[in-house]
Amino acid sequence: MFEAAELGQKVSKSDFQVRERLLHTELLAAQRRLKDSGSQVIIIVSGVEGAGKSAVINRLNEWLDARDLQTVAFWEESDEERERPRFWRFWRVMPPRGTVGIFLGSWYTQPIVDRAFGNSTVDHLDASLRRIAVLEQMLAEDGALIVKLWFHVSQKEQQRRLKREANGKFGRRRVGPLTKKFSKRYESFAQASERAIRLTDTGNNPWTIIESNDRRFRDLTAGETLLAALNQHLDKTSQVASVEAPQEPADTRQSENSQVHSQVTVLDRVDLSPQLEADQYFLRLKGAQRRLSHLVWQAWENKINTVAVFEGWDASGKGGAIRRLTKAIDARLFRWISVAAPTEDERAQHYLWRFWKHIPRAGHVTIYDRSWYGRVLVERVEGFAKNVEWNRAYSEINEFEEQLCAHGVVLLKFWLHLSPEEQLRRFEERQSIPWKKYKITDEDWRNRDKWPQYQEAVHDMVVHTSTENAPWNLVSSEDKKWARVTVAEAFVERLELAVANAKKSPAAD
Amino acid sequence: MFEAAELGQKVSKSDFQVRERLLHTELLAAQRRLKDSGSQVIIIVSGVEGAGKSAVINRLNEWLDARDLQTVAFWEESDEERERPRFWRFWRVMPPRGTVGIFLGSWYTQPIVDRAFGNSTVDHLDASLRRIAVLEQMLAEDGALIVKLWFHVSQKEQQRRLKREANGKFGRRRVGPLTKKFSKRYESFAQASERAIRLTDTGNNPWTIIESNDRRFRDLTAGETLLAALNQHLDKTSQVASVEAPQEPADTRQSENSQVHSQVTVLDRVDLSPQLEADQYFLRLKGAQRRLSHLVWQAWENKINTVAVFEGWDASGKGGAIRRLTKAIDARLFRWISVAAPTEDERAQHYLWRFWKHIPRAGHVTIYDRSWYGRVLVERVEGFAKNVEWNRAYSEINEFEEQLCAHGVVLLKFWLHLSPEEQLRRFEERQSIPWKKYKITDEDWRNRDKWPQYQEAVHDMVVHTSTENAPWNLVSSEDKKWARVTVAEAFVERLELAVANAKKSPAAD
Repeated sequence: MFEAAELGQKVSKSDFQVRERLLHTELLAAQRRLKDSGSQVIIIVSGVEGAGKSAVINRLNEWLDARDLQTVAFWEESDEERERPRFWRFWRVMPPRGTVGIFLGSWYTQPIVDRAFGNSTVDHLDASLRRIAVLEQMLAEDGALIVKLWFHVSQKEQQRRLKREANGKFGRRRVGPLTKKFSKRYESFAQASERAIRLTDTGNNPWTIIESNDRRFRDLTAGETLLAALNQHLDKTSQVASVEAPQEPADTRQSENSQVHSQVTVLDRVDLSPQLEADQYFLRLKGAQRRLSHLVWQAWENKINTVAVFEGWDASGKGGAIRRLTKAIDARLFRWISVAAPTEDERAQHYLWRFWKHIPRAGHVTIYDRSWYGRVLVERVEGFAKNVEWNRAYSEINEFEEQLCAHGVVLLKFWLHLSPEEQLRRFEERQSIPWKKYKITDEDWRNRDKWPQYQEAVHDMVVHTSTENAPWNLVSSEDKKWARVTVAEAFVERLELAVANAKKSPAAD
Repeated sequence: MFEAAELGQKVSKSDFQVRERLLHTELLAAQRRLKDSGSQVIIIVSGVEGAGKSAVINRLNEWLDARDLQTVAFWEESDEERERPRFWRFWRVMPPRGTVGIFLGSWYTQPIVDRAFGNSTVDHLDASLRRIAVLEQMLAEDGALIVKLWFHVSQKEQQRRLKREANGKFGRRRVGPLTKKFSKRYESFAQASERAIRLTDTGNNPWTIIESNDRRFRDLTAGETLLAALNQHLDKTSQVASVEAPQEPADTRQSENSQVHSQVTVLDRVDLSPQLEADQYFLRLKGAQRRLSHLVWQAWENKINTVAVFEGWDASGKGGAIRRLTKAIDARLFRWISVAAPTEDERAQHYLWRFWKHIPRAGHVTIYDRSWYGRVLVERVEGFAKNVEWNRAYSEINEFEEQLCAHGVVLLKFWLHLSPEEQLRRFEERQSIPWKKYKITDEDWRNRDKWPQYQEAVHDMVVHTSTENAPWNLVSSEDKKWARVTVAEAFVERLELAVANAKKSPAAD
């Protein structure tokens, strides 16, 4: 989830000046529309220490009209606040209709901090998140727009900044003991945050994670995200009002326009150069396969279920990579599910149903050759799923995978990546070789034309669904041998870890 | 919540025959419409042991067309099921579009049982309920209609039935050891169930609690609830389809028609006969007031916040009852909030905002003279709130009160009841006495004309919001003296308990 916010995105000074001028004007225009709309806006500013949340808020205060804007920092609880139910402190400062409230800190802060410092259980965190989801839905149903921004810097960058600030012109003033305490807890804070974001990243009230290394990129992205969400909410609200239908919360990710596109995607950061010589390839592949064939039996003995998902560009070699795995697994232990267009029976069910069906029982392996991610890839790009449908699919998928992981399923997700040029080479090769000809269809060529749209869909997919328990492995398949070995070794490594853990503590539901 | 299902409702044999014939025909017609609708129906049959859930299911099987119907009993988990994530067993039997699935037991069973037997924490229950709410919302967004039925009998009735069955013609067959174990846990089972129902009783996926003492009433109510929900869902779905709008889940409580009205309401069960003689009245009132004036200081010392809500018919004597309380409370410790139409500032916020505002700090008392319940009373009856708005207000209110109670707030809710005849007498009296004249307006007369609608709204309010932590006190105010003493004594009793508990275990958030 956070890896997509460590791409090193930047905005140059001159670019910033141009875009800022436009943004400033449009934000003011949107704010004027908001005034008469009956909606209020709550901007939740969250993120790691040192990401510059205060600086962003200062910037938003510059850009927006201060008359219909209030900024609230949820700092130390007052005794007034402590003596009342927790949400009272938020209710007392809710922005009225027609105005914008910027919240530094929010209803997320306490549950995340409690969990990060080990002062509460996962169940307690989840119970708090249920309460938060209900609150946000209620506000949204009442017409509010909630813009949830998470500002991210890597642990390394965070430490660099805190050090610099400590020695900087402001002296020790800005780095309190609490901040240091947080930075020591970077990992557990990231875990708790990721869970909180994942379980509350809904179609109606989505999160936006913003890379905060470059302050110009950070501020512009925050502003442009706000502008897009605001305009879309206002469009939707006025539409709804004009047809006299019951007011439904606007879906802020719904229209294409509302997306603030990343200039750099996670795929741009995949190094396509690695290659393997044939002898190296065979050596390492055989090694991995030998380990795998033992491991799957150990997994079986320890009742470990494994689910592996393969997605990737056409001709990226998914089948080949899977075959190298299955060759090493006893036929009784695995199923290879090749996912094509849904059948009639499958269309008669929720789209996740056909994937639930094949979840392996204890000790078994299911390999999905394409998967539920079709919802946010092909179905999104080809328009088979409505905007509102693929938008809410991120949280549906996260919830689904969360259940797998909570049950102890080992979940592996691979995206096989290659360059458009290499894809073309393979397409042409396929057309020229008789026994490969069947593998290339008109559809493949059509998909190829939509490379940029797919690239964007893959980026969004990784942003929303690469989680701690089930991260995406973006594997270069520019060289097939490299891809196959990388996949096999990653598979083995993950399974070895699971078996080792199972041996330490016997399996439980 | 369950008290509204202990009213002794009955249907005579001849009535049953007439209504059954109609119901049977209409259910079949609705089922035919369903077939082409792209929706599926999931009927969740839950409730206490001994309420006759199996018998209801047999009846539904008689009434519905068996070809597009499947009944699934979630009994002992198989090892197949145990070895996979929990929801797998439900996904594998999801009814396809166009069909009906009846679930005996459901995703609610395990979390409730775990909690009832003390095998899980409240946080764990809440975390499970979050997961359930997400699942149900997802299915609803996909077009499914989920009809959630809870069959209730009182503890006494349950024991009677289990005894009868144990000695009946079927011998010991139907009463297993598990059933007995459940009946011993009636109270904790009721608590866990109530929480589960309360936190998942949403506008889109509401619960219906069905009194199950009389089997004809039970079966007809189940059937009629299903029919109403089904027809409304199909109407809504076809409407939506025809305007090409994105498909939103139908609100099964939305239209007036969909309500299966109770013949007997909770108000009919309030005994209006009790009266107090003047000397008794003064004696008991003084006694209560004396205790109260000490108690509020003890509550202050123990940091106990108290919230009291007064609702009732016009001229039922709310103000008089409140004055008898406040007379005994130090002015520094209480606020009396008289709730009228919202101000401009208040209209610019969510409707709960103006009530959150006045939540007392530790040790203080807020008395709401009319309250947030206006949403489901006057706003519902007068049409100030849309159907979809007041329908979802039950869960919003429950969530709000849950937060108060979780914080340790003592929450008292009084409905002052009187007969229409007594109200008329008071209205006329007011008109004839100069200093009381200002208290009677045209609006009061208009409200009086809507007595049946208000009665129904009160009934639904009690059904949905009378909870274990914050039950409704339905107080007869036919005799004002009786009402005042009853209220004061109930107030004192509840606060005494809270103070005693606080002394045992010091307050915590």
